[in-house]
Amino acid sequence: MKLTCNCAILANAFQTVSGVVPSRTPKEILKNVKLEVFENSIALIGTDQEVGIRYVIQDVDTAEAGELLLPASRIIAILRELRDDTVMLESTGDTVRIKSGHSEFELPLEDPAEFPSISEFDAENYIVVEAATIRQMIRRTIFATDTESTRYALGGILVETEGDTIKLVATDSRRLALMSASCSYQGEPPSPESPPVIPAKAMSMIERSLSDDDKEVHIAIRDNDILIRSGQSTIYSRLVEGRFPKYDAVIPKQSEVSLQLVVDPFYSAVRQAQIVTDQESRGVNFNFAPGLLSLDSRASTVGQSRVEVPISYDGPEISITFDPRFVAEFLRVLEPEKQITLELTDGESAAALKTDDGYIYVIMPLSRDR
Amino acid sequence: MKLTCNCAILANAFQTVSGVVPSRTPKEILKNVKLEVFENSIALIGTDQEVGIRYVIQDVDTAEAGELLLPASRIIAILRELRDDTVMLESTGDTVRIKSGHSEFELPLEDPAEFPSISEFDAENYIVVEAATIRQMIRRTIFATDTESTRYALGGILVETEGDTIKLVATDSRRLALMSASCSYQGEPPSPESPPVIPAKAMSMIERSLSDDDKEVHIAIRDNDILIRSGQSTIYSRLVEGRFPKYDAVIPKQSEVSLQLVVDPFYSAVRQAQIVTDQESRGVNFNFAPGLLSLDSRASTVGQSRVEVPISYDGPEISITFDPRFVAEFLRVLEPEKQITLELTDGESAAALKTDDGYIYVIMPLSRDR
Repeated sequence: MKLTCNCAILANAFQTVSGVVPSRTPKEILKNVKLEVFENSIALIGTDQEVGIRYVIQDVDTAEAGELLLPASRIIAILRELRDDTVMLESTGDTVRIKSGHSEFELPLEDPAEFPSISEFDAENYIVVEAATIRQMIRRTIFATDTESTRYALGGILVETEGDTIKLVATDSRRLALMSASCSYQGEPPSPESPPVIPAKAMSMIERSLSDDDKEVHIAIRDNDILIRSGQSTIYSRLVEGRFPKYDAVIPKQSEVSLQLVVDPFYSAVRQAQIVTDQESRGVNFNFAPGLLSLDSRASTVGQSRVEVPISYDGPEISITFDPRFVAEFLRVLEPEKQITLELTDGESAAALKTDDGYIYVIMPLSRDR
Repeated sequence: MKLTCNCAILANAFQTVSGVVPSRTPKEILKNVKLEVFENSIALIGTDQEVGIRYVIQDVDTAEAGELLLPASRIIAILRELRDDTVMLESTGDTVRIKSGHSEFELPLEDPAEFPSISEFDAENYIVVEAATIRQMIRRTIFATDTESTRYALGGILVETEGDTIKLVATDSRRLALMSASCSYQGEPPSPESPPVIPAKAMSMIERSLSDDDKEVHIAIRDNDILIRSGQSTIYSRLVEGRFPKYDAVIPKQSEVSLQLVVDPFYSAVRQAQIVTDQESRGVNFNFAPGLLSLDSRASTVGQSRVEVPISYDGPEISITFDPRFVAEFLRVLEPEKQITLELTDGESAAALKTDDGYIYVIMPLSRDR
């Protein structure tokens, strides 16, 4: 096995793949990245056995095909420090030699046959989504997952298709994030029954592996796992087992009050109100009155605060208590100048926050007599 | 007590003072910053009882003098989030009201009388050093302190004066950093007997509290403590007790070999060689030969490496083993293009690294038969 490659390209590939490589694991071999060398191309493979990634680099100068296991963290450290543009890797039986400029490293190798493989993307039926769209959908939903949950399948994002619409949904049962966008299909669309729940870690890998150059993402749903192809990466993931809540029932169908807010001043006020909260008194009162939103918080050990935001609203006065973290997490993933619509019914019913590009966020209020 | 102040200036002052405020302490009151309000000026005081800082802001619009204790972390969080240019603070008995723009906070207050005070800088005899110089001296020595040491006073930096020269020295007994620069005196120079050892934390506070506008630093040495005035800050510190080693004996008086190196390529090579070391095999062999420095490392669990650096040297071949972390820490505080002189005698004797601006760094080699 022998290859010569651009240092920066190889470093970037290792960095991407190392996103799934576990730093602590009883199976020491998983701390490696598998390198498969072909004529003119190489593939890097990392996995924690739940989620795996196969990253392909084309147009690599290879002299001999083969495969070997490289220790991920040391290789990344070496590639980061090299000063030359190119690096040469050569395996000599049980070691690999890494040469670049005036530097030479020799590292011991483990047996690549013992490493789980990630297949190429070979599906005939898959969903096609724009790369920039799926990236935004993931960012706007992943924070609402609950990776601690065992009762429901809340540790992942539900991926649902209906006609030419794809929906991503995440919830921790106190708030819910949903984003819809358009998609198309290659071959057959997936069955509408039991849509898959993809682990948050896999979704995060997809988001990170996408580069600005990537145009499309291909999602192939299978019985127990999913394959996602985007640019140079194929990501494999097992599905989250268990039942995902009937999220449709959670989304308010109508509301008493609808008002417009701009992200930046609203987010600033929420962050301010959040300072004067503590473990016992988490809630902030949001009071909507004609022309003015006021946020009141009070925690016995910390003090109290009142933050006001002028708003264009002339409906009835309405007051509701939220955990400000849930509001802040929604506002954080939006552009500061973006306008959002808040729909309220009363202080006890779920509130819906919406954008004009298919994003809905539902928050359950805290009870007032905490 | 009432004052109106620029938000950014007050936030910066709290940020500086919070450098000494302990995040965990059995004395909860120390988590506060004391605010003393005078006519036209205010002082912020923070302390962990070993090191304290008094930071003065002039030209503040104050309406009533007085003093109060503010919870450091909440105030910093509030000041960071405020959007208006100015902030108003007003105490109303047992609470303080903080108002700015559309925001208002009310926090409970503790009794300021129970908070240790830091006096103003009132010394008549003190050392005068340029601010930029003392900043560089601290950066170049502080990393060699050993805050775990109990046998010797190694947890701080020795400050020695002799004629118009000030020396800062730090060592952990395996390497030593010394920097000399010129100073002057106001009043009497300090006694040359038993020069003070100033805790690393206090030295770090001095370095951080200096702004680019500051011109001079004044250092007053007293029997058990030290006062340092720089710009808007007065820093108080107890001295480290115990004996500082006779550092003069450690510095090689002569050497067999002297050679020139440039920081950047040397530092890069050391960082590369450091990758292939582990807990058991920490050492890297530095081999100096005519025209070429080669760094060899070998660790049974990790592999081996050889990194070469062209050097302008035509003396005899000499080989020495260092802990690469000690070499890297020295190179890290120097400008990349700077030239340094390395003086060696043999593989068993201490090596000296020197700059042309008064900086000497001595490293003990590791034994070859580890």
